[in-house]
Amino acid sequence: MPTAAREFTAHDLVSRLESLSEFGATHPGVTRLVYDASWRAAHRWLRTEAETLGLAGTPDWAGNLFLHDPAFVADGSRAALLVGSHLDSVVRGGRYDGAYGAIAGLLIAAALRGASGTPVVGFVTAEEEDSRFHGGMMGGRSLLGGVSEDELDEVKDADGTSWREALAEARADGTAAAQTPDSSRPLVRPLRVLELHIEQGPVLEAERLALGIVTHIAGYRRWRARFDGDARHSGTTPMSHRRDALVCSAEVVLALESLAREHGEPAVGTAGRIAAGPGLFNVVPGDSDVWLELRHSDHAALDRLSRELEERVAAIANRRGLTVSMELVSSQAPQPLDSGLADRAESVARDLGVSSRRMVSGAAHDTMVTARAGIPSLLLFVPSRAGISHSPDEHTEPEALWTGFRVGLELCRRLQAEGGA
Amino acid sequence: MPTAAREFTAHDLVSRLESLSEFGATHPGVTRLVYDASWRAAHRWLRTEAETLGLAGTPDWAGNLFLHDPAFVADGSRAALLVGSHLDSVVRGGRYDGAYGAIAGLLIAAALRGASGTPVVGFVTAEEEDSRFHGGMMGGRSLLGGVSEDELDEVKDADGTSWREALAEARADGTAAAQTPDSSRPLVRPLRVLELHIEQGPVLEAERLALGIVTHIAGYRRWRARFDGDARHSGTTPMSHRRDALVCSAEVVLALESLAREHGEPAVGTAGRIAAGPGLFNVVPGDSDVWLELRHSDHAALDRLSRELEERVAAIANRRGLTVSMELVSSQAPQPLDSGLADRAESVARDLGVSSRRMVSGAAHDTMVTARAGIPSLLLFVPSRAGISHSPDEHTEPEALWTGFRVGLELCRRLQAEGGA
Repeated sequence: MPTAAREFTAHDLVSRLESLSEFGATHPGVTRLVYDASWRAAHRWLRTEAETLGLAGTPDWAGNLFLHDPAFVADGSRAALLVGSHLDSVVRGGRYDGAYGAIAGLLIAAALRGASGTPVVGFVTAEEEDSRFHGGMMGGRSLLGGVSEDELDEVKDADGTSWREALAEARADGTAAAQTPDSSRPLVRPLRVLELHIEQGPVLEAERLALGIVTHIAGYRRWRARFDGDARHSGTTPMSHRRDALVCSAEVVLALESLAREHGEPAVGTAGRIAAGPGLFNVVPGDSDVWLELRHSDHAALDRLSRELEERVAAIANRRGLTVSMELVSSQAPQPLDSGLADRAESVARDLGVSSRRMVSGAAHDTMVTARAGIPSLLLFVPSRAGISHSPDEHTEPEALWTGFRVGLELCRRLQAEGGA
Repeated sequence: MPTAAREFTAHDLVSRLESLSEFGATHPGVTRLVYDASWRAAHRWLRTEAETLGLAGTPDWAGNLFLHDPAFVADGSRAALLVGSHLDSVVRGGRYDGAYGAIAGLLIAAALRGASGTPVVGFVTAEEEDSRFHGGMMGGRSLLGGVSEDELDEVKDADGTSWREALAEARADGTAAAQTPDSSRPLVRPLRVLELHIEQGPVLEAERLALGIVTHIAGYRRWRARFDGDARHSGTTPMSHRRDALVCSAEVVLALESLAREHGEPAVGTAGRIAAGPGLFNVVPGDSDVWLELRHSDHAALDRLSRELEERVAAIANRRGLTVSMELVSSQAPQPLDSGLADRAESVARDLGVSSRRMVSGAAHDTMVTARAGIPSLLLFVPSRAGISHSPDEHTEPEALWTGFRVGLELCRRLQAEGGA
């Protein structure tokens, strides 16, 4: 018979967030990369916290951690409503990205422990930020069993350490189980997934809203465009005789901005990097590279924007007499989240008097992976001060953290009460 | 009594240009940096060529070379009409830049040797390209005596070798005289200076003209502009919430282009280098640097353009809510050349049936230094294929080289005949 579940206060949430931020504290900021010493210490601390709250902590083979009623058997045989987020941070990141949802999941699982209905299990993915390895959502994918043995050797960090080698340290530490991916199935079958997260954008703060109910995670396309013209003496080449690769790139940068603005929200377009050669005061640039990105929550809209961008780039290069190559270097499809869960979250917010809006997440999150796997998933945002994230300056007010938590807890409580699994 | 002066052919000119290009040949291209082994070998070869043609070669303390009638005393006591150009090249440059005027000066001095009237002396400056040292027209300035002893120690190449140390090698080699700058005066007092040079731009070729009569050397201003906005997540930051430093830079690049085009020739504006940070696909750039240059032949016009550029840059940054700093990093005043000499050159071209136009040189040349010193100076251009220069692809047809030479020779013949000095 489990001990009675607890009621929590804002202080319970905020003090644990502060404690978690000490693991990997880089003064300023937090650097907690998957399987590193700070990550492993945070992982052990979370498990101890869970035990203090009457829960058990069970890691899977990849170091994803489930926080559950000790009476719940996390051996792959049981299903549950999962609530949580990720444990890792970017290099010199903030205290809230991932950590907020992880602590919220811990407290929600503890608050709802032992109640009748669907089991509610906290989850903490090992990796989401792509900051040590570039495996792409390693945590979320491994949580669902979507990783091959081969990938453990192929994915390497900047020092050449493979996922398998790094994982060995976690296994030696007890922060990952000694199971292999081939034999693995999820330790907990997810019925539904809820993730609480900071917005990492400025919209909620600007609109003075407490909650963002995310209906879609935007997809993106990324290109590297290269323009070739003529490198010529800047003094002796009249304006009318130039094929200047940098002015061509500059026009493309502005065309991308115009395209996203004309299309309207949630379209965004960003040129993140640019270069022009040879890079001297007295030479008209003969070549230029520019990195272009488009994001949208809707497949067809992203297709349309992409075609339009490609056409505008070609037209600009053509009018200026430059050659262009535009290489698609990566893309991610837009991912709708569960509309039924969004409706439920909206009801909860209304009932609790919490102001909210539906919105698109421009960034990927663990729920993108679970939604893509067909599991009804929902992402809830709380405001980010000035939209700053992936920075030591990341901040959300305790009151705002608590408000989001209350909605998440109540939503899980209602879903639990409906039963299932 | 000197031997009789010779009549030359196009082959005499072109074959010597070919020979000179072997000194420092880098296959492709020519790399002949001041005082290096190739430069010294070329210098010795030129002197020998001069002797073969009945001239004497006299280097000054800096390695500038005078090619003159042996009866002419190059000790600072005599004045002459100087005709020539520079011996050095850029790294992997072409076969014509500088070399054409140097060989033309040699042959003109040889052709007019011993005739009555003003002495005509070939000159070959040691350094013009700023490619080994960054002293700024070291050859032309030292030719006129405008260099201090201190500068010999201050000016250093990329390896830390000072001008003085490099010069010691040339002195040991006989390619520079053992005179010190403080005690120096020009070995030949220049009455007038004529320089023949390739255009290094596309205008003469495009207009199918044989000769450019340069009336002004353009001045320039160079700035480094820096924009600071907010580095934010590219997915989560709506277009309306951005302060994107790269789109700001891009708009400035296009504004500079528009400004120069609106103003019309001979204004040119060039953004030669650009960067944006942090330089990732998924971050809206928070900072950006861009290098800007304006050139014009007229002082007041360059002032006006500069003010207009500064205003446009400030307006763009202001409208986008970014901070801007714009640092003037270097400038050079426009330099008019001698209008009387330009008129004379035009007469000669007309008399010889050579098509010509007056034009501005966007690039600096040795005549900029001599004109600035108050010496009536003129620069004549021959076409450059596709405007390419400072490149192994630099090319001018033998016929075009010869046409320019004929004008230069006839101009010198007429000036010589008028007497003086």
